Amino acid sequence: MSYIIDIVLFNDFETLDAFGPVEILGKLPDIFKLKFISMEGSLVESSQKVRVETNLYKYEAGVERILIIPGGNGTRENIEDESFISFIKELHNRAKYTLSVCTGSALLAKAGILDNKKATTNKKAYKWVTEQGEKVLWVKEARWVRDENIYTSSGVSAGMDMTLGFIEDLFGKEKALETCQRIEYIWNEDSKYDPFSKLYE
Amino acid sequence: MSYIIDIVLFNDFETLDAFGPVEILGKLPDIFKLKFISMEGSLVESSQKVRVETNLYKYEAGVERILIIPGGNGTRENIEDESFISFIKELHNRAKYTLSVCTGSALLAKAGILDNKKATTNKKAYKWVTEQGEKVLWVKEARWVRDENIYTSSGVSAGMDMTLGFIEDLFGKEKALETCQRIEYIWNEDSKYDPFSKLYE
Repeated sequence: MSYIIDIVLFNDFETLDAFGPVEILGKLPDIFKLKFISMEGSLVESSQKVRVETNLYKYEAGVERILIIPGGNGTRENIEDESFISFIKELHNRAKYTLSVCTGSALLAKAGILDNKKATTNKKAYKWVTEQGEKVLWVKEARWVRDENIYTSSGVSAGMDMTLGFIEDLFGKEKALETCQRIEYIWNEDSKYDPFSKLYE
Repeated sequence: MSYIIDIVLFNDFETLDAFGPVEILGKLPDIFKLKFISMEGSLVESSQKVRVETNLYKYEAGVERILIIPGGNGTRENIEDESFISFIKELHNRAKYTLSVCTGSALLAKAGILDNKKATTNKKAYKWVTEQGEKVLWVKEARWVRDENIYTSSGVSAGMDMTLGFIEDLFGKEKALETCQRIEYIWNEDSKYDPFSKLYE
């Protein structure tokens, strides 16, 4: 089984939200083929000033797709952009799995994708994000949450723990641990362990 | 005090080696101004297929500089390129601090920068890297090592722990922990804790 991974980038995305999962999925190139896409297919600049080349989304027959949505300050503007939200919704509908990191879940919530589903997000931005989806079953204390084919993670670096959890769900724990070893990553394996959830009460 | 951070990119660099530290340093934009540079100043592609815009190195009077060298498969080719090694050496000579991640320390070693200094590197590639610098005082069991103004880290994700250690050294632990909190990162604060060093014996 192989998948195309569509990583959606937009101006002012949070660097590690995208490139943490990319590092992990990119370690399994026989399984995951990474595509960096944006609405315009142009250069996109992260909040940390990384300028990345992107392409337009391109349909390919007979390949399963996985969608990755980072967060970052850019979500504040994008969430008001109906065409962007429709774009996310369409990509999600074509994907077998959708994963968001940090405030990326605000975009999914706004698109209605998370209605009646469990989800989490960044804890500092918790109030703002959760206001974007009143029908979402928000989980405050979680490193990441899976609801069927949708994974949402807590802030920034939590996206890496979630991605490893995703690999575990797809291929077993051994594969996830093997990937950790290759990038010398000390994985927080427990999706419920969230030391940041109580900081903003 | 503010610094320019020169992040040296080259084809086949390891994505997180560069963008882990970038995420952390980029959270302090009043202190650190990030520059992505390469020898050619052109688009550079990581091992995980991220295509990043870079510029040429540009001298600016009166600003302290910090050099960041990622590792990755591209180091195998670059280490044979005398002009690249000279480039690294020159950038190091102009920098107040030099930080390398993963096999990036092989490049520093080849340039003679680590002679008679303590340093570490990726544990899977340990044999190859250490062969690049016979006069280096290699430390096998370490998440990262500081020797005066030079920091070297273990594999990939260890670069993030090192960068937080660097921030601690410059500005104190509170600043480092504050940065962790913003990116919800569970920091391995102990530079000597290295669960990966014994895997390849």
